[in-house]
Amino acid sequence: MLSPLPPTLIPFLGPYLPKQPPREGPFVTLTYAQSLDSRIAASPGVQTKISHLETKTMTHYIRSKHDSILVGIGTVLADDPKLNCRYVGNESNSGDFTSSIRPVVLDPHGKWQYSKSSLSQIHQKGEGLAPYILIDEHTQVAQADEDALLAHDGRLIRLPFKGMPRRESWKMILASLYGLGIKSVMIEGGAQVINDLLSESADMIDSLIVTIGPVFLGNQGVEVAPTKGLTLHEVEWWTGTQDSVLCAKPKVREP
Amino acid sequence: MLSPLPPTLIPFLGPYLPKQPPREGPFVTLTYAQSLDSRIAASPGVQTKISHLETKTMTHYIRSKHDSILVGIGTVLADDPKLNCRYVGNESNSGDFTSSIRPVVLDPHGKWQYSKSSLSQIHQKGEGLAPYILIDEHTQVAQADEDALLAHDGRLIRLPFKGMPRRESWKMILASLYGLGIKSVMIEGGAQVINDLLSESADMIDSLIVTIGPVFLGNQGVEVAPTKGLTLHEVEWWTGTQDSVLCAKPKVREP
Ligand SMILES: NC(=O)c1ccc[n+]([C@@H]2O[C@H](COP(=O)([O-])OP(=O)(O)OC[C@H]3O[C@@H](n4cnc5c(N)ncnc54)[C@H](OP(=O)(O)O)[C@@H]3O)[C@@H](O)[C@H]2O)c1
Ligand SMILES: NC(=O)c1ccc[n+]([C@@H]2O[C@H](COP(=O)([O-])OP(=O)(O)OC[C@H]3O[C@@H](n4cnc5c(N)ncnc54)[C@H](OP(=O)(O)O)[C@@H]3O)[C@@H](O)[C@H]2O)c1
Repeated sequence: MLSPLPPTLIPFLGPYLPKQPPREGPFVTLTYAQSLDSRIAASPGVQTKISHLETKTMTHYIRSKHDSILVGIGTVLADDPKLNCRYVGNESNSGDFTSSIRPVVLDPHGKWQYSKSSLSQIHQKGEGLAPYILIDEHTQVAQADEDALLAHDGRLIRLPFKGMPRRESWKMILASLYGLGIKSVMIEGGAQVINDLLSESADMIDSLIVTIGPVFLGNQGVEVAPTKGLTLHEVEWWTGTQDSVLCAKPKVREP
Repeated sequence: MLSPLPPTLIPFLGPYLPKQPPREGPFVTLTYAQSLDSRIAASPGVQTKISHLETKTMTHYIRSKHDSILVGIGTVLADDPKLNCRYVGNESNSGDFTSSIRPVVLDPHGKWQYSKSSLSQIHQKGEGLAPYILIDEHTQVAQADEDALLAHDGRLIRLPFKGMPRRESWKMILASLYGLGIKSVMIEGGAQVINDLLSESADMIDSLIVTIGPVFLGNQGVEVAPTKGLTLHEVEWWTGTQDSVLCAKPKVREP
């Protein structure tokens, strides 16, 4: 069971949720939870509680407005996340699952053993769709994982990642998802995915939603910081009892 | 002229402003403005606008509640700050100056040329007190600077910094200021001072007030991040049109 969604979050988030994509490609929301010192985990590969109950519910609410949730393989290996949506409506919040949101895992080198994951179990319990795995066209996948994925309703999506500059790969990823009918993607991390997007591809992000938890994780933590400055516009803040949430539209800084 | 103080800031800040010190030593407020990616300047030694007009006024309001403002020499050399207080009362905000707040500069090696600084000019214009400079007992100071400082109402405070562990030096600094009648210190930076305090001496901080500006300064910026985690309690957030402000009491994390 999720805690109730604070009602003020609905009008607050409204302007930042997916709309008709402004281009031939999906609407992209980048969202994560950070400490004051801009860490998203206390150390590499360690899942760390940063946000509180109310903002956890917010994450599920935002998921419910998207066609898919994308994370990098580092996050999947560290957190073994469920990537499903337990928010089922504005008022009711009964513990049901919205089963129409597609998890997408970026795993060019095939590091993931899908058949042993929480995501696989979640699907078997009827609590979420099986994932689309974005993988390099030349990467081999263990038969058990491919079989499990296909027996569920998942897919291996083979793309020519190798040697491609990161920015180009993001264009390819988004185009490929759009080609599969995905009109909105909520990108949830981890650090490399976030830093990559904020550094070189901020113009591909439609909405940025950052939860700030009132804690310092320390300089050994996993950091979010782009390689160069980035200004934001259409900035709004929401504050709960513990966390603060920023919504904004990235605006690539003039040189 | 400062922009008006948002009225909601007064009750918000109230619980975090100096009270009767809870010990034989000054009440310590640590305050700074950071970007989302926890940078307080875009690159070393570069003054960077992070917070907006309303939170700038807030800084002056908070200063008005303290006996002194302390910064490290790195900040003085980078920013040549005025360190005075232009907030003169709850309602009126006429451009007058509160001239009873003591600037304190931590300059163990005597790097600062006081006689050429903005602070010296500010004092000569009657817009603030001259500073107390905390300096190592063996450091030589140029005669012109010492003369100017003493002709104004400033002081060189000689302390045995050399070889002292940082945590011990903070105890000494605070005890020394208290001995001079200073019952509250607002510590405003820079990075080394903040990181030092948050890392090893967070138990010496009574209130933490952090302004977060909605911008990324990038990983080349001057970072605030303690060497280890730190949890906060009595957390409150205030949001303006652009910035978010966190007030809290540091609580040293159990090992
Ligand atoms: N607080 C939060 O909101 C939050 C959210 C999510 C995750 N996290 C934390 O973040 C950490 C994981 O982050 P991470 O940086 O290790 O991993 P990550 O960003 O989840 O995944 C990085 C990997 O994804 C692949 N990848 C990323 N961008 C790509 C691109 N454009 N094209 C092709 N492949 C791409 C690469 O795989 P290859 O190396 O195989 O090429 C890369 O190494 C964990 O500690 C987790 O707890 C925190
Ligand atoms: N955004 C904000 O709120 C804000 C506020 C203030 C400053 N800043 C920025 O911060 C940057 C400056 O930071 P910084 O790290 O270079 O310098 P800093 O922290 O202002 O000063 C560091 C110096 O102070 C002395 N010091 C510090 N702690 C001491 C202690 N416990 N005992 C004795 N001496 C001590 C040392 O001098 P010695 O090296 O001589 O020993 C040290 O190098 C600038 O870019 C400035 O713009 C930002």
